[in-house]
Amino acid sequence: MNKFKGVIPPVVTPLTSAGELDKNSFKRSIDRMIEAGVNGLFILGSSGEVAFSTDARREEILRAAKEIVGDRVPLLAGCIDTETLRVIEHAKVAEKLGYDAIVATAPFYALGGITEIERHFRKIHEATSLPIFAYDIPVCVHVKLPGDLLIRLGKDGVIAGVKDSSGDDVAFRFLVDDNKEAGHPLALFTGQEVVVDGAYMAGADGSVPGLANVDPVSYVNQWQAYQAGDWESVRTTQNHLSALMRITSVVQEVSGFGAGVGAFKTALKLLGVYDSNMMPEPVAALEGENVERIRNVLVKTGVLSD
Amino acid sequence: MNKFKGVIPPVVTPLTSAGELDKNSFKRSIDRMIEAGVNGLFILGSSGEVAFSTDARREEILRAAKEIVGDRVPLLAGCIDTETLRVIEHAKVAEKLGYDAIVATAPFYALGGITEIERHFRKIHEATSLPIFAYDIPVCVHVKLPGDLLIRLGKDGVIAGVKDSSGDDVAFRFLVDDNKEAGHPLALFTGQEVVVDGAYMAGADGSVPGLANVDPVSYVNQWQAYQAGDWESVRTTQNHLSALMRITSVVQEVSGFGAGVGAFKTALKLLGVYDSNMMPEPVAALEGENVERIRNVLVKTGVLSD
Amino acid sequence: MNKFKGVIPPVVTPLTSAGELDKNSFKRSIDRMIEAGVNGLFILGSSGEVAFSTDARREEILRAAKEIVGDRVPLLAGCIDTETLRVIEHAKVAEKLGYDAIVATAPFYALGGITEIERHFRKIHEATSLPIFAYDIPVCVHVKLPGDLLIRLGKDGVIAGVKDSSGDDVAFRFLVDDNKEAGHPLALFTGQEVVVDGAYMAGADGSVPGLANVDPVSYVNQWQAYQAGDWESVRTTQNHLSALMRITSVVQEVSGFGAGVGAFKTALKLLGVYDSNMMPEPVAALEGENVERIRNVLVKTGVLSD
Amino acid sequence: MNKFKGVIPPVVTPLTSAGELDKNSFKRSIDRMIEAGVNGLFILGSSGEVAFSTDARREEILRAAKEIVGDRVPLLAGCIDTETLRVIEHAKVAEKLGYDAIVATAPFYALGGITEIERHFRKIHEATSLPIFAYDIPVCVHVKLPGDLLIRLGKDGVIAGVKDSSGDDVAFRFLVDDNKEAGHPLALFTGQEVVVDGAYMAGADGSVPGLANVDPVSYVNQWQAYQAGDWESVRTTQNHLSALMRITSVVQEVSGFGAGVGAFKTALKLLGVYDSNMMPEPVAALEGENVERIRNVLVKTGVLSD
Repeated sequence: MNKFKGVIPPVVTPLTSAGELDKNSFKRSIDRMIEAGVNGLFILGSSGEVAFSTDARREEILRAAKEIVGDRVPLLAGCIDTETLRVIEHAKVAEKLGYDAIVATAPFYALGGITEIERHFRKIHEATSLPIFAYDIPVCVHVKLPGDLLIRLGKDGVIAGVKDSSGDDVAFRFLVDDNKEAGHPLALFTGQEVVVDGAYMAGADGSVPGLANVDPVSYVNQWQAYQAGDWESVRTTQNHLSALMRITSVVQEVSGFGAGVGAFKTALKLLGVYDSNMMPEPVAALEGENVERIRNVLVKTGVLSD
Repeated sequence: MNKFKGVIPPVVTPLTSAGELDKNSFKRSIDRMIEAGVNGLFILGSSGEVAFSTDARREEILRAAKEIVGDRVPLLAGCIDTETLRVIEHAKVAEKLGYDAIVATAPFYALGGITEIERHFRKIHEATSLPIFAYDIPVCVHVKLPGDLLIRLGKDGVIAGVKDSSGDDVAFRFLVDDNKEAGHPLALFTGQEVVVDGAYMAGADGSVPGLANVDPVSYVNQWQAYQAGDWESVRTTQNHLSALMRITSVVQEVSGFGAGVGAFKTALKLLGVYDSNMMPEPVAALEGENVERIRNVLVKTGVLSD
Repeated sequence: MNKFKGVIPPVVTPLTSAGELDKNSFKRSIDRMIEAGVNGLFILGSSGEVAFSTDARREEILRAAKEIVGDRVPLLAGCIDTETLRVIEHAKVAEKLGYDAIVATAPFYALGGITEIERHFRKIHEATSLPIFAYDIPVCVHVKLPGDLLIRLGKDGVIAGVKDSSGDDVAFRFLVDDNKEAGHPLALFTGQEVVVDGAYMAGADGSVPGLANVDPVSYVNQWQAYQAGDWESVRTTQNHLSALMRITSVVQEVSGFGAGVGAFKTALKLLGVYDSNMMPEPVAALEGENVERIRNVLVKTGVLSD
Repeated sequence: MNKFKGVIPPVVTPLTSAGELDKNSFKRSIDRMIEAGVNGLFILGSSGEVAFSTDARREEILRAAKEIVGDRVPLLAGCIDTETLRVIEHAKVAEKLGYDAIVATAPFYALGGITEIERHFRKIHEATSLPIFAYDIPVCVHVKLPGDLLIRLGKDGVIAGVKDSSGDDVAFRFLVDDNKEAGHPLALFTGQEVVVDGAYMAGADGSVPGLANVDPVSYVNQWQAYQAGDWESVRTTQNHLSALMRITSVVQEVSGFGAGVGAFKTALKLLGVYDSNMMPEPVAALEGENVERIRNVLVKTGVLSD
């Protein structure tokens, strides 16, 4: 389990203005995060535009990331799709490309219950030799993974960890405690960006913050302060990162993925890491005043010089 | 628009006990519906297990249905996926296989707004020559398609019709009225099973009831009574169909797709149309007492002799 | 049970511009509905601003309505409050004032389950001799009353009927069927305005449409057509009423109670029934363009002459 | 604003087995909390069963608490009701009884928007001289108070603080930051019990944890550690309190208020503070195995000796 801990950013996917994968920007951004000291990379997460990418594009992104990263850090592949057999297809690709783990959500679109969710993860585990991270993201799949299910799947060796993007910090703390009591079968990562300090206080094994695409150094520093027990530094670093996260909330007239990932891409373009802030269909790239609002936050937080 | 009206069942997909497409059962069921007089067939809808089928399986199902149906009735293909580019891929397959229309939902999984939904349908329309039906199914995609958006897309020739599975009969009636005032650009179908009579009173152009897989004759009779203005017959037929729909609510300890489509498959097996009531992963087939409960409803409603 | 059937409007409460109960307008409106032939009146429903009225105001409204109505039609009193003991207090007032029945929702604000809802209705029944109508309004109390609970309470003599404002027409039809099978213990009213025809097709015992404050004659005509089996008239009357209901959806920049009841009050003022369209705090009365939009609908539907 | 900071428990209301206010238990519990060093007390919060209490009972509780407390700590009164005029009535009672502040939620039951919420708080402020705390509790009132609204009301002197029970720790941190930037017009309290450490890291001015009824000393210790910058102690104390909070989640077959406040009352009875764990109608008191489960947690966490 030691392989998976620390800061593992969900890698945002840069596009050219023609909507193709921009490999140069991708390499610059990935190298920048590895040089900052991240402990792994999560390719094709929600913010990696997995839902917007065709199967061919998904494979292209996974392949490019692996080529760029090599064996420098562990690589997790998002295998996110509606139901079991479709997820297994994606898992086979990740396996073929040499990924270290896969990340899967509960089934979505069709209606089901906990029984189906449990069977879903067990069937995926039967079909792949890779470690599986359960991705708890009710805002996208409209169900919260129950803590007792996760612990049971962990103890049975079905899943190796959890990426918790539920926003339910109470449930996360209970999960951390239950995991400890069960002998720590799961590596538990928070998907928070703004209250990672709280997750570390709760005992998280790491974080998967989308904002680490923009400021990887600060998240790495925060992780190291946590490891050293320097809570005041954990907290003040969080204050900086929370202020920086405002790049997503200053955006006007756009919401959801378009505002969140749109702001990350725009910031990365302003920082010279990306060549374009192009978004996948049907989402428009941020422009005009929204870009200026993001620039102001970057300047105010010292991430961009005036 | 005349091509699309009346009863267009969303065709349930029979599987062998090994989980493969059961072409024999598929043919028996489709032929039975066409012989009953349905006005079209909708392949790969939610109840056609589109979300559970890999792309290869989806194409296999679409191809098999087209081979069975030929040109006997219009064929609609469900092109249901998370975002625009993935939907367009499915639309290309439907086009290649000779389908008459495609059916697409709002984007799902990633968070967005009305702007993205509108652009989604416009981009799909640019990419295919087939008529597009907007599938309004908030229980799966977690957003309701607004009536004014649908009318605007209809007047602009982007969509040809709507399958309304929102359960919001007030919005449906307003949509019917607005469509009439706009010159009837849209063919408006209700996805209801239990209150189709109400949708006909509101002025629907047809219905897409999953239960028509089980009892196609009654839905066809109801449609014809509606066309003849015989409301009393519309109503008494609905009473029969509502009683029959209890096959889905007598099921215990299973909910959602497993109970609904599970009951349809089990009824079709009991009626000798399907060889198996096998369900796609991660859903278990109904068995034991649940099968008996379904049998009782079939007998009580006269659909199965004792 | 015969006492409760047909059209029982939830009576909107007119206020003076000072925010007091406007008894003259109240009398004009109530007399107008009784003269139109309504079968009962429901005072202090959601649209009767029960939630906005202090206990003293509630009693004033109930008393005034009883004085105006006398014994001309049965009177139902909304006893709507967060939990059991508070509801029972309101029931005692209704009893004292000579009301014929009370209407109560599931508990709200505090979180509970079905066990608590059942006990709530049973405790209210123990505390009052008046017949109880269960008010199913999930949009306000955030829980749907299950059909099997309602039937059980009906068979046990705890409740005498249901006002269904759930918008779930499938559940309503199943409830009508189950009630028939149970020997019709419950009088079942739809709270719909726009699809009352569908509810009548399903076999409703009556309707409780807020819009009947504006056009009581049409709802009475529709009820009588339903009793006579004249479905075409049921339907065409509904078409008129659905068009009239647009007074609530043409309103801009206001939503919820302010748009819905605000439109009813504004229409009644335009029709000369109310002296003011004043709303209770913290809701502003509709004004300016919104009034003109409502006037246009009234003229277009022939309710107001140009 | 200094008057309101630190640990201000929402006081649970003990009942006799006959369902009356148990003043002896109330005094024991309140004195125990004051002796533990709490910085204030919040009477008639959600866990103080405000929603279950008639107006007479509410006044009895407020009066009894004031008599017990005197001027030892500041007292906040929950003035929680559906709409403005009803809330103002409760505020007048709190004023008369000498309370130091009132706590009010957004309007509930009737549907509205942000405009009505803002007007609601402004009208309450016009009607009372007491400081107002906005109670952000979407799980009960089904709307989240937006941060910009709260800051605006704070800067205008309409509200003096916020009790945040939204569970949205990201929004809470942004609120803390915005409040700091605005000159700290608001006293910001978290309603969390399990992740209070995270709220302190974010910069909260205090906490309002229901669990402090059971273990006031630990919450006071945690607050003092926070004031001293001793984060490790903040964290380990939280670990103890999170483990103790399991008294609410070990309860089976009961949920919501019955499980949460039911567990608090049962623990206080087991600790000898309360004479009874009686609950208000329509909620049943916990009994049998549920009591044993709670006892086990108390023993395991060292709050009760074996």
